[in-house]
Amino acid sequence: MSGHVYVVGLGPGDACHRTPAAAEALGRARHLVGYGPYLARIPVRDGQVVHASDNREELDRARTALRLAAEGETVAIVSSGDAGVFAMAATLFEAIEADGSPDCGISVVPGVTAMTAAAARAGAPLGHDFCAISLSDNLKPWETILHRVRAAAGADFVMAFYNPVSKARPWQLGKVLDLLRELRPPDTPVIFATAVSRPDEAIVVTTLTDAAPEMADMRTLVIVGSSATRSIPRAGEGVWVYTPRQAGAPSR
Amino acid sequence: MSGHVYVVGLGPGDACHRTPAAAEALGRARHLVGYGPYLARIPVRDGQVVHASDNREELDRARTALRLAAEGETVAIVSSGDAGVFAMAATLFEAIEADGSPDCGISVVPGVTAMTAAAARAGAPLGHDFCAISLSDNLKPWETILHRVRAAAGADFVMAFYNPVSKARPWQLGKVLDLLRELRPPDTPVIFATAVSRPDEAIVVTTLTDAAPEMADMRTLVIVGSSATRSIPRAGEGVWVYTPRQAGAPSR
Repeated sequence: MSGHVYVVGLGPGDACHRTPAAAEALGRARHLVGYGPYLARIPVRDGQVVHASDNREELDRARTALRLAAEGETVAIVSSGDAGVFAMAATLFEAIEADGSPDCGISVVPGVTAMTAAAARAGAPLGHDFCAISLSDNLKPWETILHRVRAAAGADFVMAFYNPVSKARPWQLGKVLDLLRELRPPDTPVIFATAVSRPDEAIVVTTLTDAAPEMADMRTLVIVGSSATRSIPRAGEGVWVYTPRQAGAPSR
Repeated sequence: MSGHVYVVGLGPGDACHRTPAAAEALGRARHLVGYGPYLARIPVRDGQVVHASDNREELDRARTALRLAAEGETVAIVSSGDAGVFAMAATLFEAIEADGSPDCGISVVPGVTAMTAAAARAGAPLGHDFCAISLSDNLKPWETILHRVRAAAGADFVMAFYNPVSKARPWQLGKVLDLLRELRPPDTPVIFATAVSRPDEAIVVTTLTDAAPEMADMRTLVIVGSSATRSIPRAGEGVWVYTPRQAGAPSR
């Protein structure tokens, strides 16, 4: 009997943003593999085996899933958000490229990724051309990150920053915000969306002038507007942030 | 009684990729507003009123929804994929900015966007830094599109192209592929993902050398790899395409 690995995107947090296809894959698996806090979000049924691991052990986790599937087991390996965006699907294929393809099926089950969940809470900041950059310099040179932020500013993209800060990476977001203050107007809208759809969700809308790295933690997705992104009053209080479809000419 | 507009992302096609939050908003609405073929994907219950419109009438559609909500109605305005990515949420806020904010609630309900659904079918091409560009020059200058593609190539982003072709825009994708052939290696993986999760789904994985605009139609999402994106053999037949987490140094 041939095993199967489902790489499952759980969505941003609450089960109401988890697709039926993701829920079905989780239900079908005998083994659930992933980062402990993500696994804690999902129901475990009788007979399922949970393999929780630490945040940094992605490649080991992928190998565990592939080994189990090679033995004929059905495995779900989970990511928050979408499994293919800065998440476990790429790690799984890294393991396959390094170790060879096991004799098992592989399915990637997409999910609602953090940036679109964050955007929905704030309005529609990703309404026009945008980019997504991980600020983690664990696996890429810091200079590459700065280069990409500069190029993205030149393209006048809205920017979504994944992995903005962690205990081991406290200063990177501050440097990127400093760089952006040289490249974009001071009133550019900036959104800090933390723990979207979880009980402690916090959405902060501010400007590039006032944006500070302390507004982010490990569970924050940061969005910085393009030259066309604007804030408009919300009925009641606060603002909506959106980027119109006409979003602009080359900026500078 | 105060009305409400839900801006709902339906996901890429099949209901298995539609979130429970989206399904709940659709069920709660008395009026369903949107492009006809998208509305045709969702169940209509007794008492719901369907307002189907043509593809080009986004702003009228947003105004219809806001007018109904101002009259106290509950309205769902739908988009394929995620409502905030090149879709109705931005149009709704454009209408609000132009006409003033109506006295109603507004909620944006995120969905699985086309590029992550397409990526999942092909592997994990969006596993590292990427951008999303609409190739429609209906509302932005063609030069802006070329400028952004050049900047994105300079940043070595994976690129996801929304709205690659239409009857009224037959040549734009060919020009972009020609430009990319000057900027990226000939064996760069290119994915054409059409009608993902629908009965006529078609996934074509090719290279920049062989990519041709005829491989896309209005329902296609095109992904072009970065310098780090690679193809590896799939068990059985075909390839997986993925972008590793280590994705590279500045390319050129």
